[in-house]
Amino acid sequence: MSEFHYPGGMKPPVSKVEIPKGKKLHLKVAPGNRGLDFEAEINQSNDYYVEKGLALITKRPTPIQTVKVDYAHGPKITEAFFQTQSTTDYNGVYQGHYIDFEAKSTRSKTSFPLANIPLQQIEHLEKVIAQKGIAFFLINWHLLNEVYLVPADYIIEFYRSHPRSSIPYEEMKEHGYLVKQGYRPRYDYLPIVIEHFLNNDKTK
Amino acid sequence: MSEFHYPGGMKPPVSKVEIPKGKKLHLKVAPGNRGLDFEAEINQSNDYYVEKGLALITKRPTPIQTVKVDYAHGPKITEAFFQTQSTTDYNGVYQGHYIDFEAKSTRSKTSFPLANIPLQQIEHLEKVIAQKGIAFFLINWHLLNEVYLVPADYIIEFYRSHPRSSIPYEEMKEHGYLVKQGYRPRYDYLPIVIEHFLNNDKTK
Repeated sequence: MSEFHYPGGMKPPVSKVEIPKGKKLHLKVAPGNRGLDFEAEINQSNDYYVEKGLALITKRPTPIQTVKVDYAHGPKITEAFFQTQSTTDYNGVYQGHYIDFEAKSTRSKTSFPLANIPLQQIEHLEKVIAQKGIAFFLINWHLLNEVYLVPADYIIEFYRSHPRSSIPYEEMKEHGYLVKQGYRPRYDYLPIVIEHFLNNDKTK
Repeated sequence: MSEFHYPGGMKPPVSKVEIPKGKKLHLKVAPGNRGLDFEAEINQSNDYYVEKGLALITKRPTPIQTVKVDYAHGPKITEAFFQTQSTTDYNGVYQGHYIDFEAKSTRSKTSFPLANIPLQQIEHLEKVIAQKGIAFFLINWHLLNEVYLVPADYIIEFYRSHPRSSIPYEEMKEHGYLVKQGYRPRYDYLPIVIEHFLNNDKTK
């Protein structure tokens, strides 16, 4: 998740958020936690897909560099550091097809800063595409209350030609697909994956 | 990795092992660390596949439950615990096809104890198969110096009918495929994946 800055671009681990029945999902969190909120909502959507047998998408755990471990108690880790994910946060399978994506939030209303994407994620997604995997970003325009599925090939092309720039909202819209929001799943991105990547709807 | 027991079935994180050029890969480690050795060797094999553009298989980071974080220094984690992977250790993509597997070591020469496999891994692999993913185990018969690729559907069937038992070596051999060992890749399991799962060689 972007927009939740730790020194060195590191990210905190996120516990699975249980949504009590009948409770509205849009949790009230401090502005700094919006990125985590988005992650929890994606996890909820993925849980829904698994429960319904529609797809199996899992979040990779946040990598942690362990420095000191107390084996007498647990083992209990007593010194460790968050590491940057060298891949993306999510991958999985839909009907045999490999799916890989990264989720990003921005509070901008006009453009998505590419500085939000580490080079290693671009490189990872390039490898996914080379292996014919389905690769995309879910971009959360937080203040607009819109989430877009944007195919990774477009983002990569933009990144490679303007690495320090931002993708204007209007331009991203032309290349992306608005994700339907609801209660369960919170973000219903799977129909877009099927339609865009598997039904040869390559008009965009 | 099995056979490297932590209290509560937890597993230590493993750093990527760099193999210096021309150096033999079979590192000398304490017997208790053999499981980690196997993991490092699989990681090396996966690195080879990525470098050659043959497949993209990554290891999921070991999940860690963070309890206390010192934000003034880093952030530095000052209290945390290893968690059991709720999925498998490895997944990835070969030519669009989703691959998911777990690596296990045993020091038995006669049978592979199913207690080595947590139920949640069986359940995860069942979901992978339901989504038409390629699912298997790499089983390292450490004292026999043999590694087999064993399709997950066979292991799952055995597990579901004899959950507290062991799979005899000879029976596993009938359902598995001997993995060719070498210098790079250390364990060349990809040709078996292609042959068994993708070329309709379902004779076993």
